Amino acid sequence: MYVCKVMKKLVSTHKNDNLTGCAIVMVQQLKAGKNGAEVLDDRLYAAVDPLGCAEGNVVLITTGSNSSKACKHDRVPVDMTVVGILD
Amino acid sequence: MYVCKVMKKLVSTHKNDNLTGCAIVMVQQLKAGKNGAEVLDDRLYAAVDPLGCAEGNVVLITTGSNSSKACKHDRVPVDMTVVGILD
Amino acid sequence: MYVCKVMKKLVSTHKNDNLTGCAIVMVQQLKAGKNGAEVLDDRLYAAVDPLGCAEGNVVLITTGSNSSKACKHDRVPVDMTVVGILD
Amino acid sequence: MYVCKVMKKLVSTHKNDNLTGCAIVMVQQLKAGKNGAEVLDDRLYAAVDPLGCAEGNVVLITTGSNSSKACKHDRVPVDMTVVGILD
Amino acid sequence: MYVCKVMKKLVSTHKNDNLTGCAIVMVQQLKAGKNGAEVLDDRLYAAVDPLGCAEGNVVLITTGSNSSKACKHDRVPVDMTVVGILD
Repeated sequence: MYVCKVMKKLVSTHKNDNLTGCAIVMVQQLKAGKNGAEVLDDRLYAAVDPLGCAEGNVVLITTGSNSSKACKHDRVPVDMTVVGILD
Repeated sequence: MYVCKVMKKLVSTHKNDNLTGCAIVMVQQLKAGKNGAEVLDDRLYAAVDPLGCAEGNVVLITTGSNSSKACKHDRVPVDMTVVGILD
Repeated sequence: MYVCKVMKKLVSTHKNDNLTGCAIVMVQQLKAGKNGAEVLDDRLYAAVDPLGCAEGNVVLITTGSNSSKACKHDRVPVDMTVVGILD
Repeated sequence: MYVCKVMKKLVSTHKNDNLTGCAIVMVQQLKAGKNGAEVLDDRLYAAVDPLGCAEGNVVLITTGSNSSKACKHDRVPVDMTVVGILD
Repeated sequence: MYVCKVMKKLVSTHKNDNLTGCAIVMVQQLKAGKNGAEVLDDRLYAAVDPLGCAEGNVVLITTGSNSSKACKHDRVPVDMTVVGILD
């Protein structure tokens, strides 16, 4: 899983029906830094968030087709889902 | 999901039968820039577009095998599909 | 999907039985260049080609497990298949 | 599979129910170095660990949807699982 | 598929039960070089090898979940399998 930081919530009014009711957050990947984990680069990713993250949370993101296993049903067309918030 | 910008529509006369009737758009991935999101690099990707995007739209793209869940049927041989247009 | 250029045909006498009869082409990924699309870098990929490409064709390549949906049967152990030739 | 080094164990109290009871380790990918394998870069990954690794172990990590085949059941929403410890 | 060179055989005594009896080889990805294909970079990958490769062979590697279709059964938790040896 990627280790990511939650940057903000995303709003998409016009989306696939099976994403209706799924919270979506923008995340950036983390790397090992001198003072703990820090943002790797400026790439933006969007992940479905069934756990209710807050901005700034450090989270585990499952990528690929298994990411739908963490959603409310298997038909969600997703490739990144928040599966854990790190302590 | 990738956060991408729609560059143009693609035309492919000779394609897999299960792609017939699927609109295909060329997209480029976005990154966090000083004045909002900007194009990450010059890599070109093609995505099936069931939502009817316009050029310049900022969209969410689901990659991998779950991308066919956003298409009209499960046999579409696709790895990138537009699943949302960002507001 | 990746946008790629077909470089040449590959020959592999000793291969998985489920690849028997599948044409395989070597491809390289394209990027946006000043005078249209050009080769991104020197990475070599191999793709199953059910469409009968010619060297130099610009093609759409579906990657990942959905790539077998464009092959003659679902047991083909493939992760890149040509699904369209761009006009 | 990726060849990785186990850096530490991760603790996530708030996580997907199907990850309950799965040990999770932070790993970094290895490359060929002058004196054997060394850490490739500072990217952080998290993997489910059914084998009981120790910090410093060099392990094989299966990525993608097949990674759940090495977990206790198929519903684990994972994309990286430790499948072997190298001798 | 990736075009790779076989570097050596790997030994893992402590591994997932469904990998028992699978030969595993360390491979590195190839790129187009001035005098034919050469090693792309120092990243190390491990692949299941059902074809019986020798060190130095140039091989086709299927990645992702379809890679298990080239193994002896579908439960092998693998993401890279040798599917062809190039002539």
